[in-house]
Amino acid sequence: MALKLFELLGADDRRFSPYCWRARMAIAHKGLAVEYVPCKFTDKQLFAFSGGKTVPVLQDGDAVFTDSWDIACHLEEAYPDRPSLFGGPVGRGEARFISEWIPAFSRPLLMTILKDIFDHAHADDKGYFRTSREERFGQSLEAIHADRETYAPALEAGKLPLRAVLKKQPFICGETAAYGDYIVFGAFQWARCVSPVRLLEKDDVLYAWRGRMLDLFDGLGRSVPAYPE
Amino acid sequence: MALKLFELLGADDRRFSPYCWRARMAIAHKGLAVEYVPCKFTDKQLFAFSGGKTVPVLQDGDAVFTDSWDIACHLEEAYPDRPSLFGGPVGRGEARFISEWIPAFSRPLLMTILKDIFDHAHADDKGYFRTSREERFGQSLEAIHADRETYAPALEAGKLPLRAVLKKQPFICGETAAYGDYIVFGAFQWARCVSPVRLLEKDDVLYAWRGRMLDLFDGLGRSVPAYPE
Repeated sequence: MALKLFELLGADDRRFSPYCWRARMAIAHKGLAVEYVPCKFTDKQLFAFSGGKTVPVLQDGDAVFTDSWDIACHLEEAYPDRPSLFGGPVGRGEARFISEWIPAFSRPLLMTILKDIFDHAHADDKGYFRTSREERFGQSLEAIHADRETYAPALEAGKLPLRAVLKKQPFICGETAAYGDYIVFGAFQWARCVSPVRLLEKDDVLYAWRGRMLDLFDGLGRSVPAYPE
Repeated sequence: MALKLFELLGADDRRFSPYCWRARMAIAHKGLAVEYVPCKFTDKQLFAFSGGKTVPVLQDGDAVFTDSWDIACHLEEAYPDRPSLFGGPVGRGEARFISEWIPAFSRPLLMTILKDIFDHAHADDKGYFRTSREERFGQSLEAIHADRETYAPALEAGKLPLRAVLKKQPFICGETAAYGDYIVFGAFQWARCVSPVRLLEKDDVLYAWRGRMLDLFDGLGRSVPAYPE
């Protein structure tokens, strides 16, 4: 029976959640069949059975997982004969470090593209998204958008270690992509799916890496509506 | 024949180089016998045979390595039957990410403890250290020391992903320490060997982790002169 992945749906079939992309890529890495169940922010009843309040939610037979890290760990443990996501316990430990580091990049990215996310949220979700985010950040989406250059230095600082490692090897995880790459790719794909902001120029090693990531699994990352690279 | 590790020597037998600590811990992880050859900054003739200008330098029979990353990779490849430093190619790739990320923490740390390093440099090295660092940073050591609080926010930001991961697992690399831990430990041990600055309070998960790191290999990290934890 195919896995079932409940994932975020925006306007015009946009699939922008960075955490859902981690799960998508991890499932593809394992070569497993999957049925995507698109859910709007306000479709929480679709996956209420999971006990979780956000997507991704993975259903694998009777087992249900409500967090992207738990999804990756489940796939690794349940499908040990498929290509490894972590390459062993040390790789898994270090992937956790990447997962805890990524906010240094993804938080300024969130503030940079917040209004773009709103623009591409499903019409049914716009009220919820505006209210919840303006409450969280204490500012209107438009004010955050107007100040987005404030986040540029942190965003650039976040690219530095990624760029440095990709000057030495083709993927974050070495010679081939693994879960650490999917964590980072999720952030770039999030932006690519909703924002006209050019995060990467063509002469950047990160641009080339993102291209390699988009090529994986028969171009899975390119199979959804997005802005040009 | 024992390995020979040329490492940095300060005043009063201080061994503070973070890169030398990576090599020390990696050699101990492999359980290999090693002879330390202490070198002052200005003792470059002692390891000139290596072609390198900085320590650590590792001599393993006829093979010589002049960079801490190359040292780790050599140990992993030459001693595959000993405990693994990387746990495989993915762990090695991700360790490289940690190695490229650590400057986000170690650069503000350097500026915080620069004057303390000078204070603990060997008497023969003080002139060289002052001149080279004041030229590099365009300020006197005393001016940098007076402004050291400037670096506190970046230093604290650097601790965040470390703390987050150590709330979830005992080591950066998971259940047991591996090379990713030694990269980070090098930075903390550098400070501990020369600086009275309290980097970590006792209720910090990072403090507990550093204690576990200092316990490794019969207390190797505690076998050198340092400030109290």
